[in-house]
Amino acid sequence: MFQKPRGTRDFTPEEMKKRRYIEKKLREVFERYGYEEILTPTFESFELIAKKTGEEIRKQLYVFKDYSGRELALRPEMTSSVARFYINELKILQKPLRLYYFANCFRYERPQFGRYREFWQMGCELIGSDKALADAEVINLAIEGLKNINLRFETHISHLGILKGIFEKFNIKEDDEVKIRRLIDKQDFEGLDNLLTSILDDEKKEFIFDILNLKGDVLDELKEMLKDFPKSIDAIINLEEILDYVIYDNYTINLGIARGLDYYTGMVFEIYCNGKQICGGGRYDNLIETFGGEKTPAVGFAYGFDRIMLNVDIKLDEEKYLIVPVRGDKELIKKALIVAKKLRDKGKTVEFEIMGRKLKKALEYANNRNIRYVVIIGEREVKEGKITLKDMKTGEQKILDLEEV
Amino acid sequence: MFQKPRGTRDFTPEEMKKRRYIEKKLREVFERYGYEEILTPTFESFELIAKKTGEEIRKQLYVFKDYSGRELALRPEMTSSVARFYINELKILQKPLRLYYFANCFRYERPQFGRYREFWQMGCELIGSDKALADAEVINLAIEGLKNINLRFETHISHLGILKGIFEKFNIKEDDEVKIRRLIDKQDFEGLDNLLTSILDDEKKEFIFDILNLKGDVLDELKEMLKDFPKSIDAIINLEEILDYVIYDNYTINLGIARGLDYYTGMVFEIYCNGKQICGGGRYDNLIETFGGEKTPAVGFAYGFDRIMLNVDIKLDEEKYLIVPVRGDKELIKKALIVAKKLRDKGKTVEFEIMGRKLKKALEYANNRNIRYVVIIGEREVKEGKITLKDMKTGEQKILDLEEV
Repeated sequence: MFQKPRGTRDFTPEEMKKRRYIEKKLREVFERYGYEEILTPTFESFELIAKKTGEEIRKQLYVFKDYSGRELALRPEMTSSVARFYINELKILQKPLRLYYFANCFRYERPQFGRYREFWQMGCELIGSDKALADAEVINLAIEGLKNINLRFETHISHLGILKGIFEKFNIKEDDEVKIRRLIDKQDFEGLDNLLTSILDDEKKEFIFDILNLKGDVLDELKEMLKDFPKSIDAIINLEEILDYVIYDNYTINLGIARGLDYYTGMVFEIYCNGKQICGGGRYDNLIETFGGEKTPAVGFAYGFDRIMLNVDIKLDEEKYLIVPVRGDKELIKKALIVAKKLRDKGKTVEFEIMGRKLKKALEYANNRNIRYVVIIGEREVKEGKITLKDMKTGEQKILDLEEV
Repeated sequence: MFQKPRGTRDFTPEEMKKRRYIEKKLREVFERYGYEEILTPTFESFELIAKKTGEEIRKQLYVFKDYSGRELALRPEMTSSVARFYINELKILQKPLRLYYFANCFRYERPQFGRYREFWQMGCELIGSDKALADAEVINLAIEGLKNINLRFETHISHLGILKGIFEKFNIKEDDEVKIRRLIDKQDFEGLDNLLTSILDDEKKEFIFDILNLKGDVLDELKEMLKDFPKSIDAIINLEEILDYVIYDNYTINLGIARGLDYYTGMVFEIYCNGKQICGGGRYDNLIETFGGEKTPAVGFAYGFDRIMLNVDIKLDEEKYLIVPVRGDKELIKKALIVAKKLRDKGKTVEFEIMGRKLKKALEYANNRNIRYVVIIGEREVKEGKITLKDMKTGEQKILDLEEV
C-alpha cells in the first residue's frame, strides 16, 4: 500500500477546518495592520538558501537538480525568498513595505512530536524603517494575532546590541560571536562555558553569564552594569524606546534570547506557549545587503503555524442541510435540485442525497454526519408546493411552502 | 543577483489580493455543496505518481531522493494523492465523501504563456456514489463556481463509454485505445488517422471520425448510428440521465472530449474560457482500485486556477486609514497607537506612520498608496480630546472626538 512520505501529514476535513479558521483569524490581524500578502515559489536556487547559513545547511534541505543542472531546494523558511523578491522587484515601491506570507516550508530532519518535514509559517516583514516604532509595530502585531485566537502565551524580548557591545569590548571575533549566539539559543550552557573559558578570563566569562541570566524588570540594573559599554547602552536606550511603543504589557525582558539565525542585528523576541516556542523575530538591517541589495532596514517575525495548532482547542459548529427526494422519480429529483440551489444561493451548506438511500437511512446518515436540517421532498408535498423540514437536533418537523425555504 | 527559478512566479500584494478573492469565491461554492477541504503533502513517493502514467512521466517531474534513498517527486496533480489518502485513512468514513482541495502542483516543462512549473489546482472528488446524480452534481458545481466569479465559459460534455463501446466491438486493444484517446485529446487528427489506418479498415475509421465530429444536440442521431453497439447505447442512456440533472443548460455535447489521462471511465467534461481549457473532470471508477484500494466509484474535476486568473478582470477597492502623529513626542505617539488599536478593533485596515515623515509628506504617501482616510493626531487636538480626519478622496476635513473615531 502506498504511504505518505515520512515526516509529512495528510490533513482531514476536520483538521483543515480548524487550520483555515485559525489562519483566517491571524490574517485578519495582519491585514488590519496594513500588511499585504505576497507569495514566492516553493523552491529557490540552492545558492540563495545557502547564502545566509553556508553549505552546511545542505543536509537539512531537500535539494534537487533541474535538467539544466541548476541546483534547487525546497525553501526552509521565507525570509530569504522575501529578500530576493524585494531586491528583484519590490524595492521600487514606496517605503515602508508591510508584507506578510502564509507558506509551507521544508526541513529534512528527524521527525519528532510537533516537528514535521513539511510545516507552515505565517509571518511578516516590515521593510524600510529603522525607527523604534517599526520594531514595536511587529511586536504588537505578533501579540495581537495570538490574542485574536485566544492563546495564552509569554513574550520574551531582548536586543542583540547589548551582547554585541560586550563582545566588541571583549574583543570576541565575529566567528566566535556567531557560535556563542547559537549556544545561547540552544540553551547549551555547558558548551557556552567551555567556549568562553577558551577565549576569556574567568571574570569576563562570569560577567557574560550574569548578563544572560537577567530576566524581568532589569533595564536599570543593566544600565548600571554596562555603564562602561557605550554600544550596549545605546542598545538599551533603543530597547526602552521600542518597549514604550509596545501597547501590551505582559512581556518579559530576557537577555537569554539570542536567536539562532545569524542575520538579526537589533531587537529580538520570541513567544512561547506551554513552554514551546511558537513565534520568533527581530530586526535584521543587513540581510538585504547580504543578498546583493542596497542596505535596507527591516524587522519581522514568523509564527510556527503547526506549533500554534498544537495549542489550539476549538470546536467549530456548522449548520448543514441534507436534501432527500423521497422517491427516485426524475421530475421530483429535478424539483429537489432546484430547492438545493435556492438554499445554496442563500449561502447555506447543502448536501444532496445521491446514494439512493431511502428516507430512514438518509436520516441515519444525517445523524451520523451531524447535519442539522433534513429537507424531505415527497411527491404529495411537491404537488401541493410543500416540503418537509426536519430539525435533527430538536426532532421538530415542519411543513413549509416551497417558496418559504 | 539572485533570481527566482525559471518557470516560477513571485506574486505581488496586488496579485495576491485578486487570487485570494477568486479563491474565496470558488471555495464558497464548494462549501455550499457540502464539500470539505483536505490537504496532502507537497511531495509523494515517485512510485505513487508514476503508477497511473508509467515511468515516462519522470521527465516531467521534479524528482529527488531523501537520505534513505527513497525517491520522491513534487506532485503534478492531486487526484493520486487524494486516492492514496482515501485508501490510507478516509475510507472508513461514511459515503459519499465530498472532498475539495486547493493546492500547488509542479510540472517540469518548457515555460510558455499561461503554463508555469508551479501552478495551482482547485478541485473536488466525490467518492462513493455511482449514480448519475453524482456526475451531475460535480458538473453543476464546476459551472456554478465559474458563475460565482462572473466568467464567460463553454462547457463540453461527453461519455467515454460511447467510444469504449465502439472500440470493443472493433476489437481495438487497450494499448491502442489509450493512444487513440491521447491523440483525440491533443486534437492530433493526422496522427489519429495514421493510427486508425494501421488497425482498422477505411469504413470503420470513417465511422469513428464521424462520431468524434458530433457536437451539439446529437444524442438521438447518435443512438441511431450506434444501435448495434449495446455498450455505447448504455453509455448514452447514462449520459442522458446525468444531463437531466444538470441544472444549467448552456452546455454542448461533444464526442471529441476524451481527456488525456487514462483513468477516466464514464462521463467526462471540459470547460473553456476564451478558447483555453480552464477545467476538466469526469468519472474514474477504477482509480482507487488501481492504487490498491477496494473498487470505489468516484467522480471529480479540477480547475486550472492560474488559467482562470488569466481571464479574471477585477478591481478590488479597500478603505484604508493612515494614522499620523504630527510631532515625534512619545506621549502623543502612544495616544496615536491607541487610536490605531481602536480602529483596528473595529475591523479597519490601519497603517501607522513609522518613517518619521512630516504631515505634508505623509499626505503625499497616503495619496500615492490610495489610502482613503488620514487621521491626524496633534498636540493641541489630543489636549482637547480631538483628532482630525481627512478624507483624501473628497478633501473634506473633520474634527472628531477621540471617542467618536
